[in-house]
Amino acid sequence: MKFTKMHGCGNDYIYVNCMEEEVPNPSKVAQVLSDRHFGIGSDGLILIKPSEKADFQMEMYNADGSESQMCGNGVRCIAKYVYDYGLTDKTKVELETKAGIKHLDLKIENGKVAMVTVDMGSPILEGKKVPVALDMEKVVAEPITVGGKEYEFTAVSMGNPHAVVFVDSTEDVEIEEIGPQFEFHNMFPERVNTEFIQILDRKRVNMRVWERGTGETLACGTGACASVVACVLNGLTDNEVFVHLLGGELLIKYDQKQNKVFMTGPAATVFDGEADITNMK
Amino acid sequence: MKFTKMHGCGNDYIYVNCMEEEVPNPSKVAQVLSDRHFGIGSDGLILIKPSEKADFQMEMYNADGSESQMCGNGVRCIAKYVYDYGLTDKTKVELETKAGIKHLDLKIENGKVAMVTVDMGSPILEGKKVPVALDMEKVVAEPITVGGKEYEFTAVSMGNPHAVVFVDSTEDVEIEEIGPQFEFHNMFPERVNTEFIQILDRKRVNMRVWERGTGETLACGTGACASVVACVLNGLTDNEVFVHLLGGELLIKYDQKQNKVFMTGPAATVFDGEADITNMK
Repeated sequence: MKFTKMHGCGNDYIYVNCMEEEVPNPSKVAQVLSDRHFGIGSDGLILIKPSEKADFQMEMYNADGSESQMCGNGVRCIAKYVYDYGLTDKTKVELETKAGIKHLDLKIENGKVAMVTVDMGSPILEGKKVPVALDMEKVVAEPITVGGKEYEFTAVSMGNPHAVVFVDSTEDVEIEEIGPQFEFHNMFPERVNTEFIQILDRKRVNMRVWERGTGETLACGTGACASVVACVLNGLTDNEVFVHLLGGELLIKYDQKQNKVFMTGPAATVFDGEADITNMK
Repeated sequence: MKFTKMHGCGNDYIYVNCMEEEVPNPSKVAQVLSDRHFGIGSDGLILIKPSEKADFQMEMYNADGSESQMCGNGVRCIAKYVYDYGLTDKTKVELETKAGIKHLDLKIENGKVAMVTVDMGSPILEGKKVPVALDMEKVVAEPITVGGKEYEFTAVSMGNPHAVVFVDSTEDVEIEEIGPQFEFHNMFPERVNTEFIQILDRKRVNMRVWERGTGETLACGTGACASVVACVLNGLTDNEVFVHLLGGELLIKYDQKQNKVFMTGPAATVFDGEADITNMK
């Protein structure tokens, strides 16, 4: 099986062009090849397939073999793949995902995709829909006690639930300790991703993220979007903000008129390879 | 740069055939490409070069860019590489390393290398030479207090220092806590690798290892050798023992007449790839 290893802000997947390759058991292949010592090493496997509704279709498996709906960092890499490898010459690409059709806007430099803007859809703010255990139209700067300490959080869903917490310094956050306590707090019936945000100025913030079921990660696209929505709701930044993550930088724009969030970020090709998957059943 | 990703018991390196490829700045290339999110992901980079003294020469860099002398798991993979890719048709291969010339014995199955036996040289038992802070000819089952608890350890150098500790169950060892306390104990002037060994019967043991400067690893070839020497010195096993590591299994033979240790284990090719290293300076 020919593949390409790519990453967006350090969120790395094995990409396979399924117009040319067949992957009979993708869940198993994802598990075996994602192993960082015995396999190729990745956060998962992304198959690029033909679509009847859009230009291409994305099928995505996590490293544990479970299927995933969508990933902002992965979507940008698909845009780079299909353009750089000549599968399309469009710079506006429609991609079918399990979370609907995503619109991708490609920025080309020296004949290759350098940056991609993704329409990440509308944030959901209503408490019950995020969901949080508060019946409010918006959950902004609400107090919460976690691990015996008082915090304020703002709740935003970008298809998945986020709690955004403003801190003086992201470096000082003891995320391994406090992250799980937010995740399993009874405020969040479906658990929660928690973003810790340090405001640098009206256009720049630092972010660290604790992803539910995973732990701290280098980057979380929906988390960056949710965080900028929270920044704007709290009056702390403009509506277009550079978010500095451990794995790189994303530019997030919250268009309040359209009620939409746009994410712009890099995508990188690391290497091409070929692996034998014949015995992965 | 064309490369092949291989592993021995989960100890994985990027292998490059330097009869055909040039790697101008291997220390930097090792650092960049070893990163498990932004690069290929590996424990380091191993260059296979021509030798004037042996069949081939090994040059080895850790993931942090530092040069390394030797690695038992890496040596087995080199044997597999040079035979499987047709660089030699010998089944006894001599390999020049920074720790001297290593003799490799290849076992072929279906035209490919399945197992490799490596002559790992002679164990060093004299206290001052291991080194430990005890002026004794052999350091066998000596008491030591670590973290307020009493242990017994046996000291063996295989070119690097090892403290071997027998336990009832390797599963129950709190290695993240106790490993560093052995490593930095004043008994070990050059720090130490610590092996925790559970005897299963006279031919089989479980092993977990804390490597100095690294932490717990999936496999440590010299640690497995040192452990079997310690088992024999303590009268706990025969002189040929299967060592079960987190990353796989090694067969260690301590030949007391020759005073030599032989390690037999697997080597696996994961995938072939090609990466651009032109900007890594």
